[in-house]
Amino acid sequence: MFSLLAVGSIALDSVQTPRGRVRDVLGGSAAYFSYAASFFAPVRLVGVVGKDFPREHMDLLASRRIDTRGLQIAEGKTFRWSGRYEGAMNAAETLSVELNVFGEFDGRVPEEFRDSDLVFLANGHPALQAAVLDQMAAPKFVACDTMNHWIESARRDVESLLGRVDAAVMNDAEAAMLTGNANLIASGREILDMGPEAVILKKGEHGSVLLTGQGVWALPAYPVERVLDPTGAGDSFAGGFMGSLAREGRIDPGSLRRAAAYGTVVSSFNVQGFSLDGLRAAATDAIEARYREFASMLALPV
Amino acid sequence: MFSLLAVGSIALDSVQTPRGRVRDVLGGSAAYFSYAASFFAPVRLVGVVGKDFPREHMDLLASRRIDTRGLQIAEGKTFRWSGRYEGAMNAAETLSVELNVFGEFDGRVPEEFRDSDLVFLANGHPALQAAVLDQMAAPKFVACDTMNHWIESARRDVESLLGRVDAAVMNDAEAAMLTGNANLIASGREILDMGPEAVILKKGEHGSVLLTGQGVWALPAYPVERVLDPTGAGDSFAGGFMGSLAREGRIDPGSLRRAAAYGTVVSSFNVQGFSLDGLRAAATDAIEARYREFASMLALPV
Repeated sequence: MFSLLAVGSIALDSVQTPRGRVRDVLGGSAAYFSYAASFFAPVRLVGVVGKDFPREHMDLLASRRIDTRGLQIAEGKTFRWSGRYEGAMNAAETLSVELNVFGEFDGRVPEEFRDSDLVFLANGHPALQAAVLDQMAAPKFVACDTMNHWIESARRDVESLLGRVDAAVMNDAEAAMLTGNANLIASGREILDMGPEAVILKKGEHGSVLLTGQGVWALPAYPVERVLDPTGAGDSFAGGFMGSLAREGRIDPGSLRRAAAYGTVVSSFNVQGFSLDGLRAAATDAIEARYREFASMLALPV
Repeated sequence: MFSLLAVGSIALDSVQTPRGRVRDVLGGSAAYFSYAASFFAPVRLVGVVGKDFPREHMDLLASRRIDTRGLQIAEGKTFRWSGRYEGAMNAAETLSVELNVFGEFDGRVPEEFRDSDLVFLANGHPALQAAVLDQMAAPKFVACDTMNHWIESARRDVESLLGRVDAAVMNDAEAAMLTGNANLIASGREILDMGPEAVILKKGEHGSVLLTGQGVWALPAYPVERVLDPTGAGDSFAGGFMGSLAREGRIDPGSLRRAAAYGTVVSSFNVQGFSLDGLRAAATDAIEARYREFASMLALPV
């Protein structure tokens, strides 16, 4: 088993989808990631919330195998995001963002977390992601997420970060924006050329593609008939992915492919509820059962 | 081995993609379908072309296991379509359509084809598709394709046809239009409720989903880094699908799943060239090798 560190946002989200709406619920990339990963392995969480952060959310995280000693509680309000999904819910329309205490987040990693084997740098300013990485002693495998905002406003920092990580995780539109290449596979290969040994391109309801120097592995999404809220699906995928690697305690072509499949499965639970409700309704047994079902669906009869 | 009949359009296409452009090349749903299916089993082709249809195209079809006795040569010009693809080439923009002799096509099936076991009704007016079906003696498995144009202009005929076929093949946007349901899996189930035992929803570069009463099987597309022209990908998929069923000579959950995978593989060859060039560059050995590679990609390591 590898130790696993996650650094990113903890948020209070307000979300509208065709299936309903919620207000000021637990969200944020590091919250989704940590909860998802905690099905597989202990997680060390680094982030920041404001004084207004509800006690129940703190208790929820602490009830899992999530070490919250790196969760700062700062003067001010918690990061807030509000967004809306329509139709097939493939893309969020951001309605408002209030950075609040996350705007001053320094990404300080507690001493006792700096020996982490695996590191996930959730979406955030690439300079902050790099500053977190600077504090790590000798990580075995570092993955980062990014988004269109940083590719547009801080491209050099994104490219520099990609030269320092082992895996890059982003969605298909972000990969196209980063490389200028509309073909998903070709853009993935261009990102591999920027440095990472593995690139994971997420396509929402259409699944994902894992690219390494050894090949290309496309996976469909696990079919979900009733999607309530896709918020956090990508971070849950990353949580399942890194959590699976942590549980296995090794990085090789087989563990990376299993990790992508576990990421797919965990994110399929996530979209079945608002906020973290879909993940909360899951359990290790259900995740393993769905993994077997997914593997069986993909096993072509000969 | 089952006998296989295909009825649909034979066209001269003019196509622009980011990779090039071609003019008046061989196209049409039944042409793509027949060529793709002929890798697996003999095909009986019913369609119509005009007096201007180039001899070389006729020779190309006849050089395959394609019985062209049902290919009428009518006074007038061959059906022409021109379209354009941009970016990731997920959707064609139709620039012009000239129905020409296809506008008067009666769908007459030669006597010697009426005992066909498998029937593919390529995209066309649903009343014409039904008229073809009326001529068949006792088909074992009938599949139809359709498109947004008919769903909008002849919805009742489409729904009536769906009540008479064993399998419906359409793309994701068409399924959403037909059912009003934006969730792909849910819309597929609604189409199953309209009558077919199997529904195949095509998602272009994102793969496909097969739904039956027994379950849901999602497949990614075979990853293709250099797509030249996606025209005919859906019909090539259907050709591989029905050809595989014809070759196996049985319809069951296993043969349907293998058929969907062969459809995926054959369509991946198709998009690697303009017109039928991608299929022409393929061969049974290469198709089988890519099928094994695809199965290996999807086999999750345990």
